[in-house]
Amino acid sequence: MKLFYSGASPYVRKCMVVAHELGLAARIEHLPAAAHPVNRDPNIVRNNPLGKVPTLLTDDGTVLYDSRVICEFLNELGGGKLFPAGGAQRWQVLTEQSLGDGILDAALLARYEGAMRPEPLRWADWTTGQLDKIHCGLAAIDAKADSLGERVDIGTITMGCVLGYLDLRFDHLGWRQQHAKAAAWFARFNARAAMQATLPKA
Amino acid sequence: MKLFYSGASPYVRKCMVVAHELGLAARIEHLPAAAHPVNRDPNIVRNNPLGKVPTLLTDDGTVLYDSRVICEFLNELGGGKLFPAGGAQRWQVLTEQSLGDGILDAALLARYEGAMRPEPLRWADWTTGQLDKIHCGLAAIDAKADSLGERVDIGTITMGCVLGYLDLRFDHLGWRQQHAKAAAWFARFNARAAMQATLPKA
Repeated sequence: MKLFYSGASPYVRKCMVVAHELGLAARIEHLPAAAHPVNRDPNIVRNNPLGKVPTLLTDDGTVLYDSRVICEFLNELGGGKLFPAGGAQRWQVLTEQSLGDGILDAALLARYEGAMRPEPLRWADWTTGQLDKIHCGLAAIDAKADSLGERVDIGTITMGCVLGYLDLRFDHLGWRQQHAKAAAWFARFNARAAMQATLPKA
Repeated sequence: MKLFYSGASPYVRKCMVVAHELGLAARIEHLPAAAHPVNRDPNIVRNNPLGKVPTLLTDDGTVLYDSRVICEFLNELGGGKLFPAGGAQRWQVLTEQSLGDGILDAALLARYEGAMRPEPLRWADWTTGQLDKIHCGLAAIDAKADSLGERVDIGTITMGCVLGYLDLRFDHLGWRQQHAKAAAWFARFNARAAMQATLPKA
């Protein structure tokens, strides 16, 4: 398999954490990628019209995206249990993934606004709205942190990648100060080999 | 069930098309919602920290989001076959959903830029990048349109909601002119009762 890859993308990290948890990481070749919403990468676009990472090319040439699809595909390929098969547990875990992905979407938009958009064109209200999604999302993770126990599934993996991304790009928020339960959970979860093998690189 | 609802949201429409296809629509009460990325709706945020529609409250009080999770939940509830259970067909259909959702994400961002952001703060390169995602995405739908046949699943439903949303908000693109195969497919698909029952309202 080949994966359009970025060492800083939290969505790529989700896939690689899943791959490490399932013993599949060595089977995934990393393809260089320069995903960017303005200067789009033609090598990715040729395979995925959205031009985003992660995009996976399977061994039979099928193109899969986005991270949710790739993670579930890897889970099936590796015979994993990171996606509950059905019932209430599945919807809870998948909604946690949506929460995490939504926080990441907001964080990326806040970053594009503050680091990519020309400074005179920045809109403070937009940034405030995205940061509020991050803060409310963190509060939701904090509220459930004590109940996460030692769960390893696509919900906890996504939330772990969120907190790792905030450390990488939003260190100035100091999220641990207001969210001690989430911080305690993350300290345990982040010690997993799959998390340590995929630490984000700026 | 109760659904935070907007008659213009293509993500809400996905859920309602699924509900109509499965005979579940009458069991879903619509809750008023004013989802907005800057002026966030506290009624939604109380249930979903991302403050987005669709957000579903199930009969047992569980909160589910986003559209992907709600659609799959409804499919299980209704005993549907809109999500292939596994294997190559599942990954193809789910990637089509990702393609459609990604086009919609780009369309929403282009719309926020052009209709919500104060005019002096608009960045033409940003809009160009989002429109390119729409154009490349449309080309991908066009390329597969002839092979879609009479398929009704979360892939075709999402692509149908994309084309309906472009008609609602991006009529000026004239997408049918460059994408005759997609237009021919959409003319058939859009005639389905579930599509006609959920026509978007500005």
